[in-house]
Amino acid sequence: MIRDDLRMPTREGVLDAAAKIALILPPTPLLPVEIGGVTCWAKAEVLQPVGAFKIRGAWHRLTALTAEECERGVVAVSSGNHAQGVAWAARRLGIPATIVMPRNAPQVKLDATRALGAQIVLYERPGEDRDEVAARLVEERGAVLVHAFGDPWVIEGQGSAGIEAQAQLGHSPSRILACCGGGGLAAGLALACPDAAIHVVEPQGWDMVGQSLARGEIVRVGSTPPATICDALQPDATKPINLAVLQGRAEPGVEVTDEEVRAAQRFAFSKLRLVVEPGGAAALAAALAGKVPLDADTVIMLTGGNTDMASFARTLAGR
Amino acid sequence: MIRDDLRMPTREGVLDAAAKIALILPPTPLLPVEIGGVTCWAKAEVLQPVGAFKIRGAWHRLTALTAEECERGVVAVSSGNHAQGVAWAARRLGIPATIVMPRNAPQVKLDATRALGAQIVLYERPGEDRDEVAARLVEERGAVLVHAFGDPWVIEGQGSAGIEAQAQLGHSPSRILACCGGGGLAAGLALACPDAAIHVVEPQGWDMVGQSLARGEIVRVGSTPPATICDALQPDATKPINLAVLQGRAEPGVEVTDEEVRAAQRFAFSKLRLVVEPGGAAALAAALAGKVPLDADTVIMLTGGNTDMASFARTLAGR
Repeated sequence: MIRDDLRMPTREGVLDAAAKIALILPPTPLLPVEIGGVTCWAKAEVLQPVGAFKIRGAWHRLTALTAEECERGVVAVSSGNHAQGVAWAARRLGIPATIVMPRNAPQVKLDATRALGAQIVLYERPGEDRDEVAARLVEERGAVLVHAFGDPWVIEGQGSAGIEAQAQLGHSPSRILACCGGGGLAAGLALACPDAAIHVVEPQGWDMVGQSLARGEIVRVGSTPPATICDALQPDATKPINLAVLQGRAEPGVEVTDEEVRAAQRFAFSKLRLVVEPGGAAALAAALAGKVPLDADTVIMLTGGNTDMASFARTLAGR
Repeated sequence: MIRDDLRMPTREGVLDAAAKIALILPPTPLLPVEIGGVTCWAKAEVLQPVGAFKIRGAWHRLTALTAEECERGVVAVSSGNHAQGVAWAARRLGIPATIVMPRNAPQVKLDATRALGAQIVLYERPGEDRDEVAARLVEERGAVLVHAFGDPWVIEGQGSAGIEAQAQLGHSPSRILACCGGGGLAAGLALACPDAAIHVVEPQGWDMVGQSLARGEIVRVGSTPPATICDALQPDATKPINLAVLQGRAEPGVEVTDEEVRAAQRFAFSKLRLVVEPGGAAALAAALAGKVPLDADTVIMLTGGNTDMASFARTLAGR
């Protein structure tokens, strides 16, 4: 059910998404942040109603459904943030939503998705193939699959963050650092800001987009990937539609360690007074670790802020 | 040196402050927040560059100094947030700043004020009279005292937050809940939004504004006030200028306990992804505890977010 006949996302689609999203959500703040003597910008997507940028792609996709599709409902697969984005948009539009989530997703994300009225179907990570679980639901119900990143509407919707940032800056960012799971946000930003360098930042050992860019073909994660605290950035592989947009367009991928991510979460706490989840702090971690050159027109995406109090408290304590 | 011949603050002054502040600082977000089935609004002043609304009053005051006054410098007394606001404005305007701070102020606030280039003079809280320490400095140097709340420019500057909130809502708030120390913010908001009910929220046992409103005269804190985690809300008493604005205008004062404040900090963490310090969460605590009626046009001020990681981690852990 992950179709190969998808249309390609376009910059016009991103602009359309940005216009639709501006009607219901105020721009997230672009906050000045000083790193190593350079003041650049942090785009605080953690302040979205569901605490993550995923609300953008979900809204653009769900508002493009036909009346008949709305009735049959939507299915999404997500470790939590895309889940909440789809559930939020579905509730607002009166569309039934079923979300396939890993049993070991953070409790805070499971609870929040349920609270938004979505039906949740759990699967074992990494034993079961989550895409198969979703495909079964799609077939049984005739529902529309809203893929977390391999979907043209979703890509265009996420790109609206780039349109906002450009309007807030008054000109194109020179470069954008994006936390990267499957590459939906990065692809959207690449379309939104054609003059900006796009840096994809992934957890160490989960650099499936970085490796795919380097090899020019999709590289899947190995059978025994390393542990990472970035629960939101663990796709098995990117999709052809994402690679097609990013190939020849994105800079070489950047990896960050758990410790670099935790340091970025502490930095965001102290300097920006923002709660950022591990996966949402990956781009900031790359900036703080000096892995990407920064200038006054650099935009760092803070993509999500859904994290348990206990694990955040441990991060603050340096553990 | 706390003059009794101060001019009264005016709504025109608040509008002037708002216009000046809009030139250098973007509006802080007004975030929807659902409390007990009512969606009202949180004004996220924690996202100001110094992590608190105090930057507003400091900017309005320091930009009104004469060239000669700028040369002689400014003196402020503060447990931390006003200190950072004055230091930030002074650095930007090239004015020497000396800040009188309590020795037991949070380390994070002492460090941040020093990092902004201000000279810091410590005093023992509550043994020494901080106003006397400041008065001595003012006399020695011919400096201008920038009082944390008992100053017409400071009051007008803080009120600019109300002008912003009204513009963001598209109409006057029905009521505004303000964390209250000496009453600078509350007085400014009262002038900014003449149609809004103003609720001052103070820590239990430190309700010096609430008591002063009830008695119609300034009530000083007793010699053995209770402990409070709200380090930013511990003035000995309000000032005549604040009481003059708020008398007959503000609603009866509201007190919140440390436990209610901690619950509000956890709520802001989970639902808004914001780091809010104890004193900055007092207004939200009153709302969550059902101590003030809420409606769709209610604005809750989140006034500051400067807190140590260790104490925030303890709050998240429920201790």
